[in-house]
Amino acid sequence: MNTLIENLDYVVTDTGVLENRSIVIEGARITSIRPAGSGAGAGSSGVSDVSRTISGTGRAALAGLKNAHTHAAMTLLRGYGDDMRLQPWLENLIWPAEGKLTPEDVYWGTRLAAIEMIRSGTTFAHDMYFYPAEVVRAFRDSGMRAAVGLALFDFGDPENRRGQQKNVESFLREYGAAPPGAGDRVFLTMAPHSVYTCSPELLVWAAEVAEAQGLVYHTHMNETQQEVDQCLSAHGVRPFVHLDSIGVLERVGSRTVAAHTIWLDEAELDLVSGHGVTVVHNPASNMKLSSGCFPWKELHERGARMLLAPDGVASNNSLDMFDEMKLAALLQKHHYGDPTLLPAEETLAVATGARSTVFGSHGVGGALAEGGPADLVLVDVTAPRMTPSHNLVSNLVYAADSSVVDTVICDGELLMEHGSVAEEETVVAEASRCAAELVRRARSG
Amino acid sequence: MNTLIENLDYVVTDTGVLENRSIVIEGARITSIRPAGSGAGAGSSGVSDVSRTISGTGRAALAGLKNAHTHAAMTLLRGYGDDMRLQPWLENLIWPAEGKLTPEDVYWGTRLAAIEMIRSGTTFAHDMYFYPAEVVRAFRDSGMRAAVGLALFDFGDPENRRGQQKNVESFLREYGAAPPGAGDRVFLTMAPHSVYTCSPELLVWAAEVAEAQGLVYHTHMNETQQEVDQCLSAHGVRPFVHLDSIGVLERVGSRTVAAHTIWLDEAELDLVSGHGVTVVHNPASNMKLSSGCFPWKELHERGARMLLAPDGVASNNSLDMFDEMKLAALLQKHHYGDPTLLPAEETLAVATGARSTVFGSHGVGGALAEGGPADLVLVDVTAPRMTPSHNLVSNLVYAADSSVVDTVICDGELLMEHGSVAEEETVVAEASRCAAELVRRARSG
Repeated sequence: MNTLIENLDYVVTDTGVLENRSIVIEGARITSIRPAGSGAGAGSSGVSDVSRTISGTGRAALAGLKNAHTHAAMTLLRGYGDDMRLQPWLENLIWPAEGKLTPEDVYWGTRLAAIEMIRSGTTFAHDMYFYPAEVVRAFRDSGMRAAVGLALFDFGDPENRRGQQKNVESFLREYGAAPPGAGDRVFLTMAPHSVYTCSPELLVWAAEVAEAQGLVYHTHMNETQQEVDQCLSAHGVRPFVHLDSIGVLERVGSRTVAAHTIWLDEAELDLVSGHGVTVVHNPASNMKLSSGCFPWKELHERGARMLLAPDGVASNNSLDMFDEMKLAALLQKHHYGDPTLLPAEETLAVATGARSTVFGSHGVGGALAEGGPADLVLVDVTAPRMTPSHNLVSNLVYAADSSVVDTVICDGELLMEHGSVAEEETVVAEASRCAAELVRRARSG
Repeated sequence: MNTLIENLDYVVTDTGVLENRSIVIEGARITSIRPAGSGAGAGSSGVSDVSRTISGTGRAALAGLKNAHTHAAMTLLRGYGDDMRLQPWLENLIWPAEGKLTPEDVYWGTRLAAIEMIRSGTTFAHDMYFYPAEVVRAFRDSGMRAAVGLALFDFGDPENRRGQQKNVESFLREYGAAPPGAGDRVFLTMAPHSVYTCSPELLVWAAEVAEAQGLVYHTHMNETQQEVDQCLSAHGVRPFVHLDSIGVLERVGSRTVAAHTIWLDEAELDLVSGHGVTVVHNPASNMKLSSGCFPWKELHERGARMLLAPDGVASNNSLDMFDEMKLAALLQKHHYGDPTLLPAEETLAVATGARSTVFGSHGVGGALAEGGPADLVLVDVTAPRMTPSHNLVSNLVYAADSSVVDTVICDGELLMEHGSVAEEETVVAEASRCAAELVRRARSG
């Protein structure tokens, strides 16, 4: 199906903000971003077979936002425990509830997450959780682009490890590990949870499989000072040095997506940039759990590849990349005491995926561009909070929220049209039911 | 006019969250918050003369949020300058533009601000800006409750000071200084800008007038380290000690609303709490300008009266109290390295005005309560980002944004109904026109 978005006020592209443009989408690709009026109607557009025309009047188009680190199904635990220290929160609330999760819970929790993400302009999610078959099914049903990884952790137990390896092997056999075929927006990743929950053997095995099958390697790194201390005590080196010393960075450094990366020393900063690791800033989660601050300045100065994400809902408690953009830009200015840092344009570039191509071979794009995937968001620039339009990018980063997201297109398909998402009522009802039952089970022990 | 809001899923009151309730509004007051079904229809509600019935199904009611420090008309400068250091930002962009402001600009900028605030659940704004007659007119036309102060600063120049005093005297004569009569939602404040822009003579004169006429005393305090250093160098003492030494706190401490209050030493913390000063946390503005962090813990431990606010749009760039609630709670946890601080319930209490009664004699309420003013917000609890409902208050603080605000009532009047605000299109068009012309004038010098 071909789509013409006519007479957009603005298009935010890889080369800047263009005014008065139309966008032509052929199938799953953007084939033209051109001056409005140079083919206003379907008949005169020069595109054969325009089957859908969308008015862009009063709208700006930008690339769909990319959520680079999440645990989608944790929407079911939104507000279940807040304002607590990490260990009692995990041990008394989150883990007991996760221990009672069913495949059905994960399906509906992920569907709920996908709708929340679509409503806030996100077209791609990089997920790590349990029951990956249900996560795949939920993202496929949502229409979003998604990378799905089964969270792996063996806590050093060889039997546990062999069980996890078998699970992953059977999951990869079933779903196919290679980059997806045409039209498949969901693909798999290798997701060893962290250096403090995975043995070196599991980390290395996961790297070997990821290298052999061309998978992204998704993990948590250097999130807390305590994690670094534990690694120093267990392995005698800091977490990134540990990953390097067991050969993981050599094998899959450039396909590694490392969430949080707060407590990095100079040598680790150099390992990150030297191996082309993609680091993910999670400002809300880091602030809510008092984890510390992502060292944006040092990473940016080294040219590190970078993305942005809300983490899971339990430590946020939303999945809104507009929230994260504002938080990231404000937190970095606050942290360094310098209001010129992480300016709006750079923030938007990170959030749209323009500062890392790690998912590029799997079909995920960055900023909007001719020839790129048709993953885009139309924002209402006539909304009061987007007025006036002195600087569209500033308005997107500092003033927008999900209320201004009007229409979302992913892979050429319309996922939200004028504020309406398919099956929302059903998903909200089923997720609410699952959440209530999950908590009942968790509390009954 | 009497209003019945029937079958609300939740009502957030001064005594906690109640489920399945109806609210009766008679005129401008909430007269009953009672179990749903105990008078479902207008005929059986036991309220005479119910002229409007609103369905509360799928909705939670909470008190309207209170924006305790803003410069509303600065909406016209949204995105005009970002990611800059304070001095070049003020000197090269903001002040030249403000020098070209017309009364018409201030009217439409304030109207735009009011719509943005209403859309994000705010029913009261405490403003400080220029052309107060236009600000009063704009807030009256918007239907919001507002406190309006003419920003005063003499930079130590006696002639300048006499001019400002005459302006204020004539403004007070024209509008009446006493608390408003029945039905008037807009009232005046005394607004000396700060200790670094006002001479001691002006600060004292403003305090005398405020004391004599029962006005709130609105000022900026201890926002930057530089301001404290300047005060030490000019007056030999820190800003709050300076205010105290010239008798301002003795006269009007308990009616003082001090924005920012970041750089407070122990003696100043004690002055704040001892004199009943109301301090205002402005997290977005403080982070964006790298000013520092409001010492919530020390203030809370001393029982200081406290409110929350977005500041002006130029340093935020929105006026959204949902954004500010999340930011405040996250920033405090981050700042102190303790995720238990500024929990959701306390954050909501501060944002609804329940932690300071400084505006109480002017008709501004705190949390929802029987007998209190009918200033309330209906939020859609069936929205994906508000699902599930394990903890409504957590969802309001950490997950909500303006997209879930459905209906806003102020002083018993409906300001927004199912997402629709009167005159929005006209206000957006006029404010856009004024903003474009203002910037053109500012740039032409």
